[in-house]
Amino acid sequence: MSTYEARLSALREQLKKDRLDGFVVPLTDEHMSEYVGAYAQRLAWLTGFQGSAGSAVILPEAAAIFVDGRYTLQVREQVDGNLWQYQSVPQTSVAGWLGEHTTDGGRIGYDPWLHTSAWVKQASEALAGKGASLVPVDTNPVDVIWPDRPEPSKARLVTHDDVYAGRSARDKRQDMADWLGTRKADAVVLSALDSIAWTFNIRGADVERTPVALAYAIVHADATADLYVAPEKIGEDVIQHLGNSVRVHDRADFADALAALSGKTVAADPERAVAAIFDALERGGAKVLALRDPAVLPKAIKNEAEISGHRAAQARDGAALSRYLHWLSIEAPKGGLTELGAAAKLRAFREETGKLKDLSFDTISAFGPNGASPHYRVDQNSSLPIETGSLYLVDSGGQYLDGTTDVTRTIAVGTPSEEMRTRFTLVLKGHIALARTVFPEGTRGGQLDVLARQYLWAQGLDYAHGTGHGVGSFLSVHEGPQRIATFSGGDEPLRAGMILSNEPGYYKAGEYGIRVENLVLVEQREVPGAEQSMLGFETLTFAPIDRSLIALDLLSIEEREWMNGYHARVLEIVGSQLQGEAGAWLESACAPL
Amino acid sequence: MSTYEARLSALREQLKKDRLDGFVVPLTDEHMSEYVGAYAQRLAWLTGFQGSAGSAVILPEAAAIFVDGRYTLQVREQVDGNLWQYQSVPQTSVAGWLGEHTTDGGRIGYDPWLHTSAWVKQASEALAGKGASLVPVDTNPVDVIWPDRPEPSKARLVTHDDVYAGRSARDKRQDMADWLGTRKADAVVLSALDSIAWTFNIRGADVERTPVALAYAIVHADATADLYVAPEKIGEDVIQHLGNSVRVHDRADFADALAALSGKTVAADPERAVAAIFDALERGGAKVLALRDPAVLPKAIKNEAEISGHRAAQARDGAALSRYLHWLSIEAPKGGLTELGAAAKLRAFREETGKLKDLSFDTISAFGPNGASPHYRVDQNSSLPIETGSLYLVDSGGQYLDGTTDVTRTIAVGTPSEEMRTRFTLVLKGHIALARTVFPEGTRGGQLDVLARQYLWAQGLDYAHGTGHGVGSFLSVHEGPQRIATFSGGDEPLRAGMILSNEPGYYKAGEYGIRVENLVLVEQREVPGAEQSMLGFETLTFAPIDRSLIALDLLSIEEREWMNGYHARVLEIVGSQLQGEAGAWLESACAPL
Repeated sequence: MSTYEARLSALREQLKKDRLDGFVVPLTDEHMSEYVGAYAQRLAWLTGFQGSAGSAVILPEAAAIFVDGRYTLQVREQVDGNLWQYQSVPQTSVAGWLGEHTTDGGRIGYDPWLHTSAWVKQASEALAGKGASLVPVDTNPVDVIWPDRPEPSKARLVTHDDVYAGRSARDKRQDMADWLGTRKADAVVLSALDSIAWTFNIRGADVERTPVALAYAIVHADATADLYVAPEKIGEDVIQHLGNSVRVHDRADFADALAALSGKTVAADPERAVAAIFDALERGGAKVLALRDPAVLPKAIKNEAEISGHRAAQARDGAALSRYLHWLSIEAPKGGLTELGAAAKLRAFREETGKLKDLSFDTISAFGPNGASPHYRVDQNSSLPIETGSLYLVDSGGQYLDGTTDVTRTIAVGTPSEEMRTRFTLVLKGHIALARTVFPEGTRGGQLDVLARQYLWAQGLDYAHGTGHGVGSFLSVHEGPQRIATFSGGDEPLRAGMILSNEPGYYKAGEYGIRVENLVLVEQREVPGAEQSMLGFETLTFAPIDRSLIALDLLSIEEREWMNGYHARVLEIVGSQLQGEAGAWLESACAPL
Repeated sequence: MSTYEARLSALREQLKKDRLDGFVVPLTDEHMSEYVGAYAQRLAWLTGFQGSAGSAVILPEAAAIFVDGRYTLQVREQVDGNLWQYQSVPQTSVAGWLGEHTTDGGRIGYDPWLHTSAWVKQASEALAGKGASLVPVDTNPVDVIWPDRPEPSKARLVTHDDVYAGRSARDKRQDMADWLGTRKADAVVLSALDSIAWTFNIRGADVERTPVALAYAIVHADATADLYVAPEKIGEDVIQHLGNSVRVHDRADFADALAALSGKTVAADPERAVAAIFDALERGGAKVLALRDPAVLPKAIKNEAEISGHRAAQARDGAALSRYLHWLSIEAPKGGLTELGAAAKLRAFREETGKLKDLSFDTISAFGPNGASPHYRVDQNSSLPIETGSLYLVDSGGQYLDGTTDVTRTIAVGTPSEEMRTRFTLVLKGHIALARTVFPEGTRGGQLDVLARQYLWAQGLDYAHGTGHGVGSFLSVHEGPQRIATFSGGDEPLRAGMILSNEPGYYKAGEYGIRVENLVLVEQREVPGAEQSMLGFETLTFAPIDRSLIALDLLSIEEREWMNGYHARVLEIVGSQLQGEAGAWLESACAPL
């Protein structure tokens, strides 16, 4: 079963046995996670595709793989076009393609633990035109034919100290109980892994880069809860931490527990809970309320302990990054560095802090043309030597007990061209405009997005990604619900205590990429004479921004003042942690413009 | 029946006869119009409320009137609080209030010609909790008890010349037929009055300020159409203009015609067509496609003839407004002017052009504190004298065969305070930022809104209305689907040829109001080196902006250049039309800053 051709044939054989005329393979897990464990990497095993988003559809006579614009090139390199048709979303939807290519009256299988109810409804409607139907499977046929499929991780849970969480798990459950009370509901199902980690003040190591554990939970109106997790992963310390009000069960018992909620009013989140959860609740006779997971908003609004922890993590992380930038300033001009080597060195500087738990995502260490792919991931095949005459973009972050970081710096190796300096400065002006903006309570992230783009737009340039995403507290580096973007999540009002990234960029295909990213905290802002309650951003990330890339004549007086003020803060916070040559380098890197 | 108490009692008696336990009275007509004819002013007749948006609910023991924040004060002045409870939307919804206050199992009546299907669904769901139901009525009970209810207007239709329309009605119908073809539909129902006027290149005089005729239409896939309009309103000229492919019927026959579309696939717009239309189609056995009215987008994207007509209308209108501003500069300081008198004089200047068909909306002529109500409407009771020491805000427009205008200027009477000048300049900076912005194709109006607010926000100030609305071509002064706002319509991509207003403001309650409004045209913008297709705004409105209100030290060099360039264009376009003293005044009003 070593070839993808053999795997596809085996799946088709299995579908015949299962009396199915097709099957859909998405890239997600039972928790609708963005990053998934090895056991859930069915799409990669079946097709060879290594990207972070996609799905496949297998029919008797045809098979197609669906990816978005980020992966148009990559899918052609990794997936055999003789076996798989390449399809682009959102131009072609999985549901729409199914509706067109399925046979009349066909039975198309899907795993109800890997799709939302909204997707099931949409795909069912698309199939209805041909008298075809969508059929949930009990066992995923990919799992049947995947002989060496990895087991789900057995990593043990750890407690997350109240010192970092800032609020006890008991208090959080009580808040959820109150929330259930006002909605006249008996219980809420939690299935998003970061919501469960946050609610119970626990962490895990089941997913790379995100310290969560594979689990489900049901929180009840009396503030007790049931937690479903593989028993071998729970030690006595965690049992003690959870206390008497949390009943621990095997994760395998979760579906039965849903069915047993007969007659109860149960809340579940249609965006975060899969179709199987809604199906089990409804079949069991529960009254289901489709409501947003009640952990989502309080998790996004950081409390004082989380904010002060985050500041400490940033000071530490900024020093590690600054040491790295100093090292790079010496080593890069010598030649001989590679993207992979540089990423390893950056990781080493973060590990030297003694507090690094994990990276918060795979480091984007991208030289020249590789920097022009906003979601580039360096590996042995792609790693370029870092040479003079272009730009090096490094987007990286760390997971610390007290906070999760995410920062991008763009560095000129050698003397940058005028075009590079101009375009870097346009990106920087957008970054500063967003950092400096003041806005009324109730303003949504999507309203602010243009502030970061306006200077690029004036030159007919832009970047094809959002401007900012939420960030967790020793949790997911991409955390909702807030975003600074004109699409999904951009309509969530920003609230004091939320942390977001501020990361405009510019990408010249085949040549270089630019991005300037700091994290910012939404804070109350006292404005003299204000007629309403105003908010603003406090920048949280501290590392020098490459002065050699700033075209000073393009900055307004206020922008130059912001830059100098920012660098003065970098010196203040990071400077005392850097000694000798590195300290001297930082001083010159942060000298006023 | 002279008192509102008697009217409310009579309605309750009528509801008893009709075996209804309540009734809903919205302020709209059978076409979901923003402005409605006298015959449809049921809310005003029943309650005394004169505002432009609201609804009422009558129950046996309670009655409530629902208005938004603009009318919180006005409703208390005009509507008797002993008869009617005051309710604020959106805080309280009509559906929600009904759900709470109706009796168990009650039958609540509604006129299906005055509500969308979405409203009916929402209200039905709110009532279901009490076992109550929403019941459509055949005859509106208000009409039964309203003895002297005006007849719908009998104004005759006129043709709208192709010279102005830029495209023949035949071509427009062919486009709609093609649109139907790609959707495999047989016909589309048009019920929005401006869509019908645009589609058939006809105009009417049934609604004040908007040159439309009360009509319905059905356009078929063979490019023929049925037009439903009171027969006495159609002359031989219009019959000839419509041609053989348009069958004219009595408006009263429309409902039967819908029922006769049995077996056909028929498109109708759920936002613009009322519930009765969808009900009739479905009862009649048509397959209904809920799609946006196909006239909406091409109507919003002006063609070359409409654009050049609009330019001519603006030159004419700008000269009339400039003459008025000159007159005001002489008369206002003398004292003795009133808001009403000033509005009449402005109308006279527009009429002097010899081309004015109507105002495009009731002139907002607002001195001092009256200016602080963004939607102020001057009448005998409200009209203030115009005195020195405050600001005068005038928002007005004309309907011309070649275009519809809408412009606001704010004028200092006497010497303005520093605060007035500062805040005017913040508004002006927002206006200029929006006027100057360049943005990629696909950008939605809502993305740009912040550009106009950013300088006010920085001082803790804002305005509680959208920044820009679409404008018709000798049609509605408020025309969708595009808007520059963060709510309804703000998500429509802007396209070259669309006309919008650019009208940020600031309102200090009890003191004064500021607004700077020009119309702008979305145009393709050539940007050297651009990596994608870019758009920008061309300003279309020409009249001086009060230089005495501009705090020069708050303007950047680019903003000052924009102002001087704008005033130079005003001189160029309007100057040749103004002679003698008015001409000299205009020169000084447009002198460089």
